[in-house]
Amino acid sequence: MGRPFTFINSAMSADGKISTKERKQVRISGDVDFDRMDELRATSDAIMVGIGTVLADDPSLTVKSKSRRSARKDNGSDEGPIRIVIDSKARTPLDADIFIKGEGKRIIAVSGSAPEDRVKMLQQKALVITVGDEQVDLVALLKELYSMGVKRLMVEGGATLNWAMLSNGLVDEIYSFVGNLLIGGTCAPTLVDGSGFHEDDILKLDLMSMEKMDEGVLLKWAVLNRY
Amino acid sequence: MGRPFTFINSAMSADGKISTKERKQVRISGDVDFDRMDELRATSDAIMVGIGTVLADDPSLTVKSKSRRSARKDNGSDEGPIRIVIDSKARTPLDADIFIKGEGKRIIAVSGSAPEDRVKMLQQKALVITVGDEQVDLVALLKELYSMGVKRLMVEGGATLNWAMLSNGLVDEIYSFVGNLLIGGTCAPTLVDGSGFHEDDILKLDLMSMEKMDEGVLLKWAVLNRY
Repeated sequence: MGRPFTFINSAMSADGKISTKERKQVRISGDVDFDRMDELRATSDAIMVGIGTVLADDPSLTVKSKSRRSARKDNGSDEGPIRIVIDSKARTPLDADIFIKGEGKRIIAVSGSAPEDRVKMLQQKALVITVGDEQVDLVALLKELYSMGVKRLMVEGGATLNWAMLSNGLVDEIYSFVGNLLIGGTCAPTLVDGSGFHEDDILKLDLMSMEKMDEGVLLKWAVLNRY
Repeated sequence: MGRPFTFINSAMSADGKISTKERKQVRISGDVDFDRMDELRATSDAIMVGIGTVLADDPSLTVKSKSRRSARKDNGSDEGPIRIVIDSKARTPLDADIFIKGEGKRIIAVSGSAPEDRVKMLQQKALVITVGDEQVDLVALLKELYSMGVKRLMVEGGATLNWAMLSNGLVDEIYSFVGNLLIGGTCAPTLVDGSGFHEDDILKLDLMSMEKMDEGVLLKWAVLNRY
């Protein structure tokens, strides 16, 4: 297919929010779900997030389990998957946790509109891939990642990247943990934001499984892409 | 407790949306879920919606099953529950389907800020209850409804009324059907909109049940109110 098998992993409140309106993360899932997520990370070739998530949450995206890191190394891999930031304007802070914590490759995907000086600074920290003029061209990027050996790609949000990936037909599956809380808020970030689908081009899913987990529910959806 | 037992019934996409960003309704659930909703209506004393839902969807809020309507009448009730619109400014159209379709009582709850001429017009069509100065005072309204014999109240949205009810601690349970589709959109209406909770006052839920239904999942939550 020329692109990685790609899945989104996310945790949302019972009303679909992934953070408060102030973009403050709240604990939505529990230990079982965190461990499940860690296993997904450990078995992926790369993990992708959007720049909004980096700026709001500064995640390290490392594999937390020592035994999983060891197992990866025993297989000749880095201890964690490649960490990728979709960052059209090259805004990733140089002291972001993805640079500081853990070992392994980092990729910052930027567009042609990114300031040159920022790109040069980021090149000291990561492989910088330029694809697309104003925005990162995700279709081209995924092709390039595939040719680099990324066969299994995990997307960890946020809402804007999820939208961009889904609306470009680049996502195969979604793991969505639905937590036992309500966040509310007219424009609080949800699982999928962006410009949104119109009534005649709604994206259909197929429910693969449902499972009670921690105090919530883990839903696994297959994306029925139109392409 | 001095107020009705109150539950929200809603259907949302897998990303928490109840309509597109243009407020266009899309079919989220299926026949089994519609029948479940009809049973909930038939066994409630009143059904409540917000004015936004009336203006966007013009729902009739009638009980669809003939046998359920007959059963209600055999019990000495109207064929359908009381239909209530929360309508601070008295904007409910006089030709709204809730006035035209079905039998039974209608209540329009308005605030002191509603234009007098609109209130007078609505009084021809419904019992108009004025509670609150600028906005409908939901706490006072629910007390009044309770004293009128409403012991079981069904709330059918939309997002703003759900927020107002939940943030006032007036909701006991939520039925949330999660459908096999994605709608997306930064500000598309979700299950709970409004001003939203802050990270330190998130509303907690308790998962009562989960069930595969139609092509989605029905979740039933108990609201762990702080009051």
